[in-house]
Amino acid sequence: MAHVAFIGLGVMGGPMAGHLVRAGHEVTVFNRTTEKADAWVAEFGHRRELTPAAASESADLVMMCVGNDNDVREVALGPEGVLSTMKDGAVLVDHTTASASVARELSDAATAASIGFVDAPVSGGQAGAEAGILTVMCGADDRSSFEAARPIIASYARECRLLGPSGAGQTTKMVNQICIAGLLQGLSEGIAFAQRAGLDVDEVVAVIGKGAAASWQMENRAATMAAREFDFGFAVEWMRKDLAICLTEADRLGARLPVTALVNQFYQDVLGAGGKRWDTSSLITRLDDR
Amino acid sequence: MAHVAFIGLGVMGGPMAGHLVRAGHEVTVFNRTTEKADAWVAEFGHRRELTPAAASESADLVMMCVGNDNDVREVALGPEGVLSTMKDGAVLVDHTTASASVARELSDAATAASIGFVDAPVSGGQAGAEAGILTVMCGADDRSSFEAARPIIASYARECRLLGPSGAGQTTKMVNQICIAGLLQGLSEGIAFAQRAGLDVDEVVAVIGKGAAASWQMENRAATMAAREFDFGFAVEWMRKDLAICLTEADRLGARLPVTALVNQFYQDVLGAGGKRWDTSSLITRLDDR
Amino acid sequence: MAHVAFIGLGVMGGPMAGHLVRAGHEVTVFNRTTEKADAWVAEFGHRRELTPAAASESADLVMMCVGNDNDVREVALGPEGVLSTMKDGAVLVDHTTASASVARELSDAATAASIGFVDAPVSGGQAGAEAGILTVMCGADDRSSFEAARPIIASYARECRLLGPSGAGQTTKMVNQICIAGLLQGLSEGIAFAQRAGLDVDEVVAVIGKGAAASWQMENRAATMAAREFDFGFAVEWMRKDLAICLTEADRLGARLPVTALVNQFYQDVLGAGGKRWDTSSLITRLDDR
Amino acid sequence: MAHVAFIGLGVMGGPMAGHLVRAGHEVTVFNRTTEKADAWVAEFGHRRELTPAAASESADLVMMCVGNDNDVREVALGPEGVLSTMKDGAVLVDHTTASASVARELSDAATAASIGFVDAPVSGGQAGAEAGILTVMCGADDRSSFEAARPIIASYARECRLLGPSGAGQTTKMVNQICIAGLLQGLSEGIAFAQRAGLDVDEVVAVIGKGAAASWQMENRAATMAAREFDFGFAVEWMRKDLAICLTEADRLGARLPVTALVNQFYQDVLGAGGKRWDTSSLITRLDDR
Ligand SMILES: NC(=O)C1=CN([C@@H]2O[C@H](COP(=O)(O)OP(=O)(O)OC[C@H]3O[C@@H](n4cnc5c(N)ncnc54)[C@H](OP(=O)(O)O)[C@@H]3O)[C@@H](O)[C@H]2O)C=CC1
Ligand SMILES: NC(=O)C1=CN([C@@H]2O[C@H](COP(=O)(O)OP(=O)(O)OC[C@H]3O[C@@H](n4cnc5c(N)ncnc54)[C@H](OP(=O)(O)O)[C@@H]3O)[C@@H](O)[C@H]2O)C=CC1
Ligand SMILES: NC(=O)C1=CN([C@@H]2O[C@H](COP(=O)(O)OP(=O)(O)OC[C@H]3O[C@@H](n4cnc5c(N)ncnc54)[C@H](OP(=O)(O)O)[C@@H]3O)[C@@H](O)[C@H]2O)C=CC1
Repeated sequence: MAHVAFIGLGVMGGPMAGHLVRAGHEVTVFNRTTEKADAWVAEFGHRRELTPAAASESADLVMMCVGNDNDVREVALGPEGVLSTMKDGAVLVDHTTASASVARELSDAATAASIGFVDAPVSGGQAGAEAGILTVMCGADDRSSFEAARPIIASYARECRLLGPSGAGQTTKMVNQICIAGLLQGLSEGIAFAQRAGLDVDEVVAVIGKGAAASWQMENRAATMAAREFDFGFAVEWMRKDLAICLTEADRLGARLPVTALVNQFYQDVLGAGGKRWDTSSLITRLDDR
Repeated sequence: MAHVAFIGLGVMGGPMAGHLVRAGHEVTVFNRTTEKADAWVAEFGHRRELTPAAASESADLVMMCVGNDNDVREVALGPEGVLSTMKDGAVLVDHTTASASVARELSDAATAASIGFVDAPVSGGQAGAEAGILTVMCGADDRSSFEAARPIIASYARECRLLGPSGAGQTTKMVNQICIAGLLQGLSEGIAFAQRAGLDVDEVVAVIGKGAAASWQMENRAATMAAREFDFGFAVEWMRKDLAICLTEADRLGARLPVTALVNQFYQDVLGAGGKRWDTSSLITRLDDR
Repeated sequence: MAHVAFIGLGVMGGPMAGHLVRAGHEVTVFNRTTEKADAWVAEFGHRRELTPAAASESADLVMMCVGNDNDVREVALGPEGVLSTMKDGAVLVDHTTASASVARELSDAATAASIGFVDAPVSGGQAGAEAGILTVMCGADDRSSFEAARPIIASYARECRLLGPSGAGQTTKMVNQICIAGLLQGLSEGIAFAQRAGLDVDEVVAVIGKGAAASWQMENRAATMAAREFDFGFAVEWMRKDLAICLTEADRLGARLPVTALVNQFYQDVLGAGGKRWDTSSLITRLDDR
Repeated sequence: MAHVAFIGLGVMGGPMAGHLVRAGHEVTVFNRTTEKADAWVAEFGHRRELTPAAASESADLVMMCVGNDNDVREVALGPEGVLSTMKDGAVLVDHTTASASVARELSDAATAASIGFVDAPVSGGQAGAEAGILTVMCGADDRSSFEAARPIIASYARECRLLGPSGAGQTTKMVNQICIAGLLQGLSEGIAFAQRAGLDVDEVVAVIGKGAAASWQMENRAATMAAREFDFGFAVEWMRKDLAICLTEADRLGARLPVTALVNQFYQDVLGAGGKRWDTSSLITRLDDR
C-alpha cells in the first residue's frame, strides 16, 4: 500500500480520494476550505493537513484536482506548494483539466527536483468519480512515473492510458471537449428542428439512434434536451474554461477550430440566459424563440 | 406474397429490390437506364417494364428510390408516372431522400386517386441496402398504408417506424443529417487538432471513445479520417443535396441551423478540392494546410 | 418620349413609375391589387390596365418591379404576361431582385420573341425610389437593349451600369447583399461589445468612423443600432429572400459563403423575436441577453 | 516645448517619435535593439538611452509603442521600466494595442506613483504614422492626464479623443478591429462570388461602392483583393494578436463575438497558407479552390 496525498476535495477530488481509502492506501488530504477537508476526514478517516506542502511531505504519490492553471501553479509551485516538500522519487499526478503548457511547466519543475510528473485529466463527471469508473488520460515525460501512478489511479478509474510526453493527457482531454462541442451543437440543431417539425424526439432517437448520427450525447441527453432540463451534468462554466484552453492550444499548434470557436461564443448566449450551472447540452436553449 | 413494383435500381434501389425477390415477392422493376434494369433481371429474374406506369399497373405496392424532388415528381406524377396506372387501394412508398413538401404533394395526389402513400427515406448506406438491414423512417397520413407497407419493407430493413403524417419520414431523415453535420465537423476539428498535437489518433479514440465524446462516426471513421481516406461511404454530393433540403425545410419551420449552414458551406470547400465522391468525413481535409 | 409600361406599383415601383411621368413619358401601369393602380392614376394621371399583357401592348419599354422569381415568371411568362403582347423590338426591364436563373430564362424567352431583355435590380431603398436616385445594376445579352433602356431608367436612377450578360445585374445585386451581411454582423458585434464595455457609441463612431472600419452602415446605422431602433429601412424578410437567392447561386457557382450562410441563420433568430419588418441592422438584437 | 521620452521605435513608433522632433519637442528615445535607436538618432538627432528607465528620467511625458501586453509590462513595470524613474506629475502614454486589463494595471501602478496614465492605441497604420495623421483612442482615469498628453500627441495625430476611464482607449480600438473582421469576411465572400460569377470587380465596386454595402475596405482594398495582392498593409499576425485581445475582453464582458471568433479561426487558415505578413484582406484567399 502506498502513502498518497490528495489536494483538492471538490466535486471530483473528494470521491476520488475516498476511493483511495477504500483501496487500502494511506491517504493525507488538503483542501483550501478547511470545512471540506474536515467533512472528508469525518467520512473516510485518515488525516488532513493545512497546506499542500504539509500533506505531501512523506507521500509516495501526490494527486491534485483543483480548478484551473493558476490554481495548479499555486498548489504545486507556490511557497506552500507540494513540490516544496515532496521527496525524491515521488510522483506528482495532476487530475485538473488545465493547459498543456502548465503540464510541461510542472513536469520541468518536478524533474528538476527529482520528482516524477503525470498530467492526468479525467472524464466521466461526478457520477464517474463517485462510482470510481473515471477515464484518465495521461501524459508523462518518463514512462516509469506513469507506471508508478497507474495502480493507484486504478482505485477510481476504469481506463487509464499513457498518450505521450507531458501535456499529452491534457491535449487528449482537449480533443474530447472539441469533439463534444460540435457534436452537441449538431444534436441541438437536430432536436430543435425535430420539435418544430412536430416530431416526437423519443421516437426519432429510437429510429436514428443506432446509425450514423448516433452518439453518447444522443443516447444520454436527447430526452432531457427535448424537455429543456439541464439541472445536472457538466456545467457550462466548466466547458467554457475547457474550450478556452483548447482555443489557446490550437493557436499554438496552428490548428483551426472554427465550429469550436463558434460554439464557445454560443455558450456565452447560454451564460447570458443564466445557464452557468446548466449541463452543456443547454446549447439547445439558444435555438428557441425569445 | 405481394406483387411489388420497384422504380429506380441505383446503388440503393438495386439491392433493395433484390431483397424483395429473396423474400418471395413478385417483383416488376423499372429503371430509366434500361441496361441497369436488364442487369438486374439477369441477376434476380422477374420482369422489367419500360415506364414507371407500366411497371406499376397491377402492383399492390410500388416502391421508388430515385434521386431528388424533381425525379420523384417525374416518376410519380409525370405522364408515364406510377400514379397514372396504380390500382385503387395500392400503396406507393417513396424511399428517396427528398423534401417534406414533395412528400405532402405526393400524399395528396395519391389520396385523390384512392392510393396510399408512405414517405420512407432510409439510412444505412449501400452496405445496409446490400445486407438488407436498412433503417426506414416513415411518414403517412393514414396508418393503414404504413401497415400495408411495413412487412414488405421488412425484406430489406432492420428497423422501420412510423413517425407521423406524410413528410414525417423525410423530416426525421433531416434530423439525422443535421446531427451528422455538426458531429462530423466537431470530430474533424478534434482529430486534426490531435494530429497537430502529435497524438496517436487510435490511442486517443481508444481512451475517449466510450465517453461523452463517443459517436458512431468516431468509432467507424476516426481511423480513416486520420489517414485521410475517403474513397467509400456516403458521398459529399449526396450530403450537400440532403443539407439543402434541411436548410429549406428549416426556413419553412422557423428553425435555426447555424452550424449546419456553415458545414454546408465547408462542404463546398471539399467540392472545390475535388471531393464530390468522397465520404462525408472528408470535412477534415479543409483543416489541413494548403 | 417613349411609351412605357410599368408592372408592379409597390413601395419601389410606385414612385419609380411616377418619375417616368415627370420625365414626360407616356406611362401605362398595371398592379395586381387594382386599388393601388387607381390611386397611382389619381396621383399621376395616365392609364392603368387590368392585365400585364394589356398594359404592355404598344409599349416601347416594359418595366417590372414585383416580388420574387415566381412573381416574375407569372407577370412575364404567364397567359396574361407581358411577353404575350409586347411588340417586336421592344425591351423588357426587370427591376425585381430575383435569381440570375430567372433572368436568363426571361432573356431567352424574350429573345425568342424578338424582344430585348435587361435584368436591372436596384439599390437605394424606398427613399432612393422616391427621390429618383436609385442605383441600377444591369445585365443584358445585347448592349442595344441596355442602351435603349438606359435613358428611361435615368428618370429614377443616379447610377445605371451594364455589368455583363443577362443575369449580371442580379449577381451584382447579390454581391451587394453578401457584403452587407458580413458587414452588419461585424458592426453589430462591435457596437454590442462597445455598449457592454461602457463606451458611448456616438463617440466611438466619431473616432473610428473615418478609418479602416468605416462603412455606410456605420455612418448611417450605428446610432439607431445603439438605440435598438429598427422601425424603418430594409426589412429582414426581404433580406432573407435575397440571401436565399445568393446562397442558391453560390451553390451553382461553387462559391463559398460561410459567414453569409451563418448570418442568414442569425436572421432567423431575429424573425423568431418578431423582427420580420425590422431594418436589417436588427441583427444586433440577438447579441443581447434574453 | 516639452521633454518627451519615446520607448519603442518600430514601424509605428519610429516615425511617431520623428514627428515629435519636427514639432520642436526635446526627445529622448529607447529601443531594445540598439541599432534601431542609433539609426533614429542619425536621422532625427537628439538622444538615446540604453534603458526605458534612463530615457524617462526627466521626461514630462513618456510615450510607448511596443508589441503586446507582456512587452508593455516589461518596459513600464520591469526593473528598468519607465515607472521606476518617471517624475511626479509626469504622464505615461501607451500607444501599444494591448488589453484593457493591462491598461488598468498600468493606470493603477502609475497613480500610486503620482504619475498620470493614458492608454492610447492608434489606427491609421504605417502610412498614418509616417504622415503624422493617426487616429488616437484614449482612456484615462483623470482628464488632466489626457489634456496634458493631447497637444503632444497632436504632433502625429489627426484625431485624438478621450473615450472613458483607463482601458477605454483599448476597448475602442477593439471595437474597430471587431467591425473590420466581419466586414472583411463579408467583402471577401462578395468579391470571390463576383469573380466566380464572371463579373468585373472594378465595375461592381463602381456601382455598389457608394450605397449600403460601401466601406473603407471596399474602396481601398477591393481591387487588390480581386488581384490577390497582399504585400502591404496591416499584417495578419498583428490582426490575430488584436482579435485574441478582443475575444478575451468579450469573455470578461459577457459580449458575444460569433463571427469575430470564426474569422479569427479563418485567419489561422491564412497563416497555414503562409500569410503571416499579408494584409488582413487576404482572408479572401481561403475562398479559392485548392
Ligand atoms: N465536475 C466535473 O464533472 C468534471 C470536472 N473536471 C475537472 O476537474 C477539476 C475539478 O473540478 P471539480 O471537482 O468539479 O471542481 P470543484 O469546484 O468542486 O473543486 C475544486 C477544488 O479545487 C480547490 N481549489 C481551487 N483553486 C484552488 C487554489 N487556488 N488553491 C487551493 N485549492 C484550490 C477547491 O478548493 P475549495 O474547496 O477551497 O474551493 C476544490 O477543492 C476541474 O479542472 C474540472 O474542469 C473534469 C471532468 C469532469
Ligand atoms: N447512396 C447512399 O449511401 C444513400 C442514398 N440515399 C438516397 O437514396 C436515393 C437514391 O440514392 P442512390 O441509389 O445512391 O442513387 P443512384 O444515383 O445510384 O440511383 C438513382 C436512381 O434513380 C434513378 N433516377 C434518377 N432520376 C430519375 C428520373 N428523373 N427518372 C427516372 N429515374 C431516375 C436512376 O436512374 P438511372 O439509372 O437511369 O440514372 C437510378 O436508378 C437518393 O435520394 C439518396 O439521397 C439514402 C441513404 C444512403
Ligand atoms: N503596424 C501597424 O500597421 C499598426 C500597429 N499597431 C500596434 O502598434 C504596436 C507596435 O507596432 P509596430 O510598430 O508595427 O511593431 P514593430 O514590431 O515594428 O515594433 C515593435 C517595437 O516594440 C519594441 N519591443 C517589443 N517588445 C519589447 C520588449 N519586451 N522590450 C522592449 N521593446 C520591445 C520593439 O523593439 P525591437 O526593435 O528591439 O524589436 C520595437 O521597437 C503594436 O501593438 C501594434 O499592434 C497599431 C496600428 C497599426
